Amino acid sequence: MKARRYTYKVVLRWQEAKKGMLSASANKPNIEIATPPEFHGHADIWNPEELFVASVNSCIMTTFLHYAERDSLELLGYTSEAEGILEYREGEFIFSEITVRPKILVKRDSDIKKAEEVILRSEKNCLISNSIKSRVIVLPEIEASAHNSS
Amino acid sequence: MKARRYTYKVVLRWQEAKKGMLSASANKPNIEIATPPEFHGHADIWNPEELFVASVNSCIMTTFLHYAERDSLELLGYTSEAEGILEYREGEFIFSEITVRPKILVKRDSDIKKAEEVILRSEKNCLISNSIKSRVIVLPEIEASAHNSS
Repeated sequence: MKARRYTYKVVLRWQEAKKGMLSASANKPNIEIATPPEFHGHADIWNPEELFVASVNSCIMTTFLHYAERDSLELLGYTSEAEGILEYREGEFIFSEITVRPKILVKRDSDIKKAEEVILRSEKNCLISNSIKSRVIVLPEIEASAHNSS
Repeated sequence: MKARRYTYKVVLRWQEAKKGMLSASANKPNIEIATPPEFHGHADIWNPEELFVASVNSCIMTTFLHYAERDSLELLGYTSEAEGILEYREGEFIFSEITVRPKILVKRDSDIKKAEEVILRSEKNCLISNSIKSRVIVLPEIEASAHNSS
């Protein structure tokens, strides 16, 4: 069996002060990043810390979408707030914990159980959660738009 | 001493197919994300995997800028290519390795040694490297624009 292996490339160019510009392949829009204000940087610009939390949050969603499709779960909505806690411990800063709160909207009451199974599987199989030391806590909230089980 | 602790929040809203929109606080621009093509997603949109590599790449730069300022290192340029390797190992995907290649331009030959020390310290103290299991390899290339030591 062929080994499954993928590579992801990102280029970062320093601009001025504590700011840089990220670019990825081809037609992807650039993303400006900066040191956050609490570390003497800039407000109103994405920072590396937020990108880290965003990568976990979005990986759980893309994993969810993958399993939802495979299990023919009809999805009406998915909105997820994630919060990462950065703490100073034993001489270094570390992201100790990331809490992800997906609000999932499905069509029927009878889909709620399936959605629960799918988000649980996504929590376990998110490749970015697999790659980090931070504790990842997923607290889903699942609702059905129509209250029937047909 | 007051415990140093910061939180970072990111909201993600699913749009359609394998696409979502990331937002952070206040005036930050939204970032569109999607499952990458190799996992049956979309091209030309940033994916969670790239955001992860971007967070490591940019954290090393912001850490470098912090120490460079503290050590009064005059910086003329910093461009960094990072590549993450995602591998399937023992039943799961994991980012095994991220290689970061900062090209650093300083003013004088005599600043090269200082820049080497600063990038080495940044490699050790990057808070995102601290938080992940992937091996982070930093391979700096440092040049001076003027070849004198004054």
